Amino acid sequence: MRHLLSTEELDRETLETLLATAEGFADVLARPIPKVPALLGRTVATMFFEPSTRTRMSFEKAAKSLSADTLSFSASSSSLSKGESLKDTVLTVHAMGVDAMVVRHAATGAPWRVAEWLDIPVINAGDGAHQHPTQALLDCLTLKQRFGGLDGVRVAIVGDIRHSRVARSDVFAMATLGAEVVLVAPRTLLPLDIAGWPVTVAADFDDVLTELDAVYLLRVQTERGGASVFPSLREYTRRYGMTGERLARAKPDAVVLHPGPMNRGVEIDAAVADSDRTLILDQVANGVAVRMAVLFHLLGGDSDG
Amino acid sequence: MRHLLSTEELDRETLETLLATAEGFADVLARPIPKVPALLGRTVATMFFEPSTRTRMSFEKAAKSLSADTLSFSASSSSLSKGESLKDTVLTVHAMGVDAMVVRHAATGAPWRVAEWLDIPVINAGDGAHQHPTQALLDCLTLKQRFGGLDGVRVAIVGDIRHSRVARSDVFAMATLGAEVVLVAPRTLLPLDIAGWPVTVAADFDDVLTELDAVYLLRVQTERGGASVFPSLREYTRRYGMTGERLARAKPDAVVLHPGPMNRGVEIDAAVADSDRTLILDQVANGVAVRMAVLFHLLGGDSDG
Amino acid sequence: MRHLLSTEELDRETLETLLATAEGFADVLARPIPKVPALLGRTVATMFFEPSTRTRMSFEKAAKSLSADTLSFSASSSSLSKGESLKDTVLTVHAMGVDAMVVRHAATGAPWRVAEWLDIPVINAGDGAHQHPTQALLDCLTLKQRFGGLDGVRVAIVGDIRHSRVARSDVFAMATLGAEVVLVAPRTLLPLDIAGWPVTVAADFDDVLTELDAVYLLRVQTERGGASVFPSLREYTRRYGMTGERLARAKPDAVVLHPGPMNRGVEIDAAVADSDRTLILDQVANGVAVRMAVLFHLLGGDSDG
Repeated sequence: MRHLLSTEELDRETLETLLATAEGFADVLARPIPKVPALLGRTVATMFFEPSTRTRMSFEKAAKSLSADTLSFSASSSSLSKGESLKDTVLTVHAMGVDAMVVRHAATGAPWRVAEWLDIPVINAGDGAHQHPTQALLDCLTLKQRFGGLDGVRVAIVGDIRHSRVARSDVFAMATLGAEVVLVAPRTLLPLDIAGWPVTVAADFDDVLTELDAVYLLRVQTERGGASVFPSLREYTRRYGMTGERLARAKPDAVVLHPGPMNRGVEIDAAVADSDRTLILDQVANGVAVRMAVLFHLLGGDSDG
Repeated sequence: MRHLLSTEELDRETLETLLATAEGFADVLARPIPKVPALLGRTVATMFFEPSTRTRMSFEKAAKSLSADTLSFSASSSSLSKGESLKDTVLTVHAMGVDAMVVRHAATGAPWRVAEWLDIPVINAGDGAHQHPTQALLDCLTLKQRFGGLDGVRVAIVGDIRHSRVARSDVFAMATLGAEVVLVAPRTLLPLDIAGWPVTVAADFDDVLTELDAVYLLRVQTERGGASVFPSLREYTRRYGMTGERLARAKPDAVVLHPGPMNRGVEIDAAVADSDRTLILDQVANGVAVRMAVLFHLLGGDSDG
Repeated sequence: MRHLLSTEELDRETLETLLATAEGFADVLARPIPKVPALLGRTVATMFFEPSTRTRMSFEKAAKSLSADTLSFSASSSSLSKGESLKDTVLTVHAMGVDAMVVRHAATGAPWRVAEWLDIPVINAGDGAHQHPTQALLDCLTLKQRFGGLDGVRVAIVGDIRHSRVARSDVFAMATLGAEVVLVAPRTLLPLDIAGWPVTVAADFDDVLTELDAVYLLRVQTERGGASVFPSLREYTRRYGMTGERLARAKPDAVVLHPGPMNRGVEIDAAVADSDRTLILDQVANGVAVRMAVLFHLLGGDSDG
């Protein structure tokens, strides 16, 4: 593994190795001094061409927990406003002495281009509606912690699958690890290339609700008019929201996940969000451990740390 | 002390302990290598829901001087624009592995809410027009350094008391430490709940000027129309500004404080600001030492460092 | 050398010492752990009153590679919006415990004012259209690496000289080190005070092209209407752009430099930018080494590190 760009190309052994390493780092993070010197002196650049506070903070925490330094680039205050190309921007930051680059970009495929241009590991932190592989890894780690493993775990991913990089990344990672993934969405919000996806589909949430071990709620991107195929947010909630009523009908040990940030009252009821049935904060905590594992494997920390 | 939210609940012993610790850290900051490993491996999150460069930088310098890592959240580039609630934001950042949280927010009481939601120490870095306790601690340390202690020191706080979290925090801390505090403001700028405050009041600055040991000038918040009860800024200066003429009539060893940023020519004359009668830069320097002391006490650095 | 404000006052010995130190740090940066503890515990403040991602990142990388801490101030989120003066801003940040200050400002001379107000080293990271001395140092280091030294090296600086702090800094540094500098620009884009500059002038690029060892292309500041004396960008490219055709006519070992960010297709053809004739990424890499050298000399790292 030279880069982490997508979950589509990751085999089961690679996924399991990353998760095992992440579990080790989760133990490190629970220590009084939650740091190891594995990447001392290395520099990780976070290149965010799209704003994201939580993902950036998680990567920075992961890098610092491995004793790496971080360099932060954000598009808003950058030379991009002076017309510089993506290529020149990443070549420039690389030339400052960067050992790995974390890239978020609104354009599908941008991190692949960056990986072609540079001879250092590149981590996709979200490209358009395409991939967000560390999100999938942290979701899988969270399910593994709860169910012992993903084999046979029945997971529904609910909402706007078509425009979700989280859904696309999760589907391939979870299925490779043995989960049975069902997409719950109206046809208009299913991906166009769904023929190749290792999933089943349900248009009606309630048809599958009682069989599920885990419900993965996608964020309604209200700021992007994400629910615009629905007459209203209220209609979205009625058909696809995780209400208290739905949670009561689900299996008693079924759990709820969400990539955040939540729209309370839209895709998830506030009472559900605050209940002990959600693993949302475990997901966040696991995000740091998973990103440590990815940086560690890509930077060969084992041989230098 | 689990959190530092307000000076109203701090007793004299607690205040004196914090100031004594801060004096020790002021000595550390004067060393060639101004750092101690007390909080090595700990992470302090600065959560600024209102912009503030200087307070954030001061907390970051304090954390780094204790060898802690920092994680910075600022509202402008955050999920808040995606509609996330304050609660979800702070729970999320906390779940990344944060040991203490510094919170600035425009809403009165917000840091108390945060302290209810989290099991880590919370420091109020300014909430609305309510409290800003580390500002009060650094002001008290500055006065203590000059006068040996605050007992019997006569301090005037001048300006828009009603809308000032600095004034409210200072009044309670200074009075608890034995200072005699007089508020100098027109009735319209006095707090509504002044009955419970340990202060006297003077509408006319010149009535009390010659008795004062220290004059604490509040910032006229010109950007918020803060002097709008006055016909003009010139009228404000005439009645409440620290002019050279007023300074000449004050006690020869009276000192001038200001929380910054100053409006030169409004609440303070440029010549006064630049004179050796002001302690404004001592206040800034003490801010770092005081914030180190607060982080050290709240994070129990003594037992782990 | 107490500050680094301009290349105009630097003698040959000082320049050579800085370049020699920078070459040593370039070796450090090539190590597996590219860090030295020379400035452990010191704090470098980067004060950017004008936005700049790449220069700020380069200084931060340099400071961290010397084990210094950094404090970042940027005007956009600062008290400047509250009307604070430059003087009060820098005095305040200094009082937090800062050992050196890097200043970028739109106003010519601003870093000199800062140096008068403070008793710590000040580094000019670009003031108006005036000076940008670390850019000149990294350019000189890049030419030295290629040609062994600058004596007799014939360098053309091409473009809007009048409004370029890069050109002004480079001219004096390069000439002091023995280079023969020719300015290639229309009369309207030559500096008004050119009488005192150690240069020759050519209005027509092609008149001098075949004699050059190095071509230094200035950025066309399209966002500032920088090419407005030209009928069009196309006309600029025709007269002053480094096209493939021009490169083919240049000496076979002539090299191309650019301070970045580039306008591909305007002052430089994409094919030239991507060719091995450009030293643009060497310039970026050398920027970190040169800034380490400057910080090291100004902060007397040798006696404390």
